Amino acid sequence: MAGDGRVSDTDREAALELDREAVLAANRALYEALENGDLEAVESIWLGAGEADDKGGVICVHPGWPVLRGRAQVTRSYMLIMMNTEYIQFFLTDVEVELQGDVALVTCTENILSGGEAEEEGELGPLVGGKVVSTNLFRRTADGWKLWSHHGSPVLTSGDDEDED
Amino acid sequence: MAGDGRVSDTDREAALELDREAVLAANRALYEALENGDLEAVESIWLGAGEADDKGGVICVHPGWPVLRGRAQVTRSYMLIMMNTEYIQFFLTDVEVELQGDVALVTCTENILSGGEAEEEGELGPLVGGKVVSTNLFRRTADGWKLWSHHGSPVLTSGDDEDED
Repeated sequence: MAGDGRVSDTDREAALELDREAVLAANRALYEALENGDLEAVESIWLGAGEADDKGGVICVHPGWPVLRGRAQVTRSYMLIMMNTEYIQFFLTDVEVELQGDVALVTCTENILSGGEAEEEGELGPLVGGKVVSTNLFRRTADGWKLWSHHGSPVLTSGDDEDED
Repeated sequence: MAGDGRVSDTDREAALELDREAVLAANRALYEALENGDLEAVESIWLGAGEADDKGGVICVHPGWPVLRGRAQVTRSYMLIMMNTEYIQFFLTDVEVELQGDVALVTCTENILSGGEAEEEGELGPLVGGKVVSTNLFRRTADGWKLWSHHGSPVLTSGDDEDED
């Protein structure tokens, strides 16, 4: 627990803090890419970019959707979502990171503001709000922390006694 | 990739297969404990049983709920669910395991049959069905694989073009 004799506790904590920051940056990058409708950026955040094997590994559950497996299915889903979204903005709250070796688990609440269909050409339709909770699982790779699994689900309960603050 | 010279590929694959089986058994045990309304069994499946630190670590999202953190909140949620459930049965499909070091990610579809409120005393009310997709994250401990995170969400889309089989 207290180190192996070569690495001090301080060094260890500093390394953990760097990991946490890198994971949080990767998590933010995901939502920025979605806000920008940048499919290539989204793809680069997911595990296995540039690798030939496209069969498995990554897992994605969008709110209300079944499980999607593999980069091909995941990319296709984002393409569909982007095609049907005029405008989307994420305000992340309750962001927490848990580290375990080369795996990091991020939980966050996505407070989403998105634009519906425009009534008139060139105008933005009415904005709608929504709340989604997500567990995002990252893996450490030679190319940085990459998204292994994303699970988002709609918050349907009022959560009265959970919101104690 | 091919081993460190001390462990053969065959041994490595056998060890992976044992891990997979142990993870799947832990996953099944969770749903059996829920079917039996056995809160103690559920608690023993989650990470950190018997440990003094109750503050953090485990994460749980029930379908439609916000994020719950820590054993105390998670146990309380199961208590509430069990109090309001006369009968529940899980038929798991699409169960898949991904292993990464001391972390295992299980995805599955929970086809749920649950009993509503009884009209007459001693009788079971009408059964209702539901479909939930879950990502269950386990961590290897000295006491076996323990549940680190559970995220279940309702499947709201028909998933027409996903159900190709």
